[in-house]
Amino acid sequence: MSEITLVSSNKSFGGWQKIYSHESTELQCRMNFGVYLPPQAENGPVPVIYWLSGLTCTEANFIQKAGAQKYAAEHGIIIVAPDTSPRGVNIPGEDDSWDFGSGAGFYVDANQEPWKKHYKMFSYITSELPSLINSKFPTIKDKQSIMGHSMGGHGALICALKCQGQYKSVSAFAPICNPVRSVWGQKAFAGYLGGKEGEENNHWKVWDATELSKVYNGPPLDILIDQGKDDSFMVELQPESLIAAVKDAEALHVVVRMQEGYDHSYFFIASFIEDHIKHHVKYLKS
Amino acid sequence: MSEITLVSSNKSFGGWQKIYSHESTELQCRMNFGVYLPPQAENGPVPVIYWLSGLTCTEANFIQKAGAQKYAAEHGIIIVAPDTSPRGVNIPGEDDSWDFGSGAGFYVDANQEPWKKHYKMFSYITSELPSLINSKFPTIKDKQSIMGHSMGGHGALICALKCQGQYKSVSAFAPICNPVRSVWGQKAFAGYLGGKEGEENNHWKVWDATELSKVYNGPPLDILIDQGKDDSFMVELQPESLIAAVKDAEALHVVVRMQEGYDHSYFFIASFIEDHIKHHVKYLKS
Repeated sequence: MSEITLVSSNKSFGGWQKIYSHESTELQCRMNFGVYLPPQAENGPVPVIYWLSGLTCTEANFIQKAGAQKYAAEHGIIIVAPDTSPRGVNIPGEDDSWDFGSGAGFYVDANQEPWKKHYKMFSYITSELPSLINSKFPTIKDKQSIMGHSMGGHGALICALKCQGQYKSVSAFAPICNPVRSVWGQKAFAGYLGGKEGEENNHWKVWDATELSKVYNGPPLDILIDQGKDDSFMVELQPESLIAAVKDAEALHVVVRMQEGYDHSYFFIASFIEDHIKHHVKYLKS
Repeated sequence: MSEITLVSSNKSFGGWQKIYSHESTELQCRMNFGVYLPPQAENGPVPVIYWLSGLTCTEANFIQKAGAQKYAAEHGIIIVAPDTSPRGVNIPGEDDSWDFGSGAGFYVDANQEPWKKHYKMFSYITSELPSLINSKFPTIKDKQSIMGHSMGGHGALICALKCQGQYKSVSAFAPICNPVRSVWGQKAFAGYLGGKEGEENNHWKVWDATELSKVYNGPPLDILIDQGKDDSFMVELQPESLIAAVKDAEALHVVVRMQEGYDHSYFFIASFIEDHIKHHVKYLKS
């Protein structure tokens, strides 16, 4: 288990918003993550929600802009906000695109050169980081949920759908619901997983929320999705694909709320983060 | 009256967070300001709170990090967040310091070369901008309050103390309470107003909240101040000076809350912004 180093610490809503760094074994690089410790964490273990950010983000965006600390403090929840990709790993071209490489890990485990050594974000998020968090902070290990935005909404959905039972609930803001059919997803999957852009490659489907929901056979999972109706990236997000896929699913309960006038920004996230935390609290506190 | 140009617009808590730009007559340059329009503003005029940001900030910091929109929407309040100094005016040296020149207008009216042509932030904030806001947005003209942070806390206090009766209430986070005795204040005042750093120049006192509070003879004014006990800039802020100065003041009611563990950051502001908005609502809705 790697050591963690405190990067910053700010009192927030009676608790503490901290950022730590550590050497990641999965990613073979030094990573930052944010952790909000609510006041209740001083008196004993509490549940955890993981937040996965979108394209171009780091661990900082959600911490500074979503306003989640207020509700985490009210309900006594730790929120962990990791970075979105490996950092400083010096792969040629990693910084060339805003939608691929650094800042755009897509929460998959790459198996293609030159990405496969470092770009193991799925294993990092679902295995290494939770182990680290559970060893260093007062968490209730079987009370964990996950949420995210855009690329991170895709990440949250596939983490919950693939690691059946690991997360008590899942939610997403404007998630990329069907990446095998989106331009962003095809670019990322072709790079990290191999295959051709412009085609629906079969081996990509195990990283696609819509496809995974068709074969999900884990415990009941309650999925809350908020989607702004004025989101300029709607063609990449395709909530209708996920809705159609889960129509007859027994174990998946999906509510997609189409929010009039809202866009893809953190103003949208901040407006509904309270509802998402309450969604998770239903399962984390029961 | 100058025209305003929409820079950005994001739906937020049922209302709209917008940024506009305009040509300022006082500042002789193009300026941005943020304005949050709560849902209630669609049905008629509402009160306004002005927010003044601190050193190095623009109109963006408060909008993105304070989480105020939630409470502005709940109470039906417009919040106006101006920039902190003239921009793009090409004065030699304006970008050399983080605590003087661009980003550090200090909310005074400069009378020294080369600053006096543009650096008229006091007149901009208390006169030009309110006239513009009242002409373009559905405001109740006699229901206005003001608040700010650090340099902007100083700004909010002097605006309310100098423009007696213009603001129904005032509040501040970690304000520079006695700038004539602080390093930041002395540097700014010497530059904008003339005089020597390291001395308490008499002609500075009309821009100092502690000094102004000693001679205030306007209508009753309720001042709420939050100050983090772990604020690393405490030596610049000197809340004790203001507290001592208003001890016997009849018209000024000052509550200074020393907040255990909090620092100078927006995490501190976000933690207590709800209380500040409620403080103003008491007077804006009565």
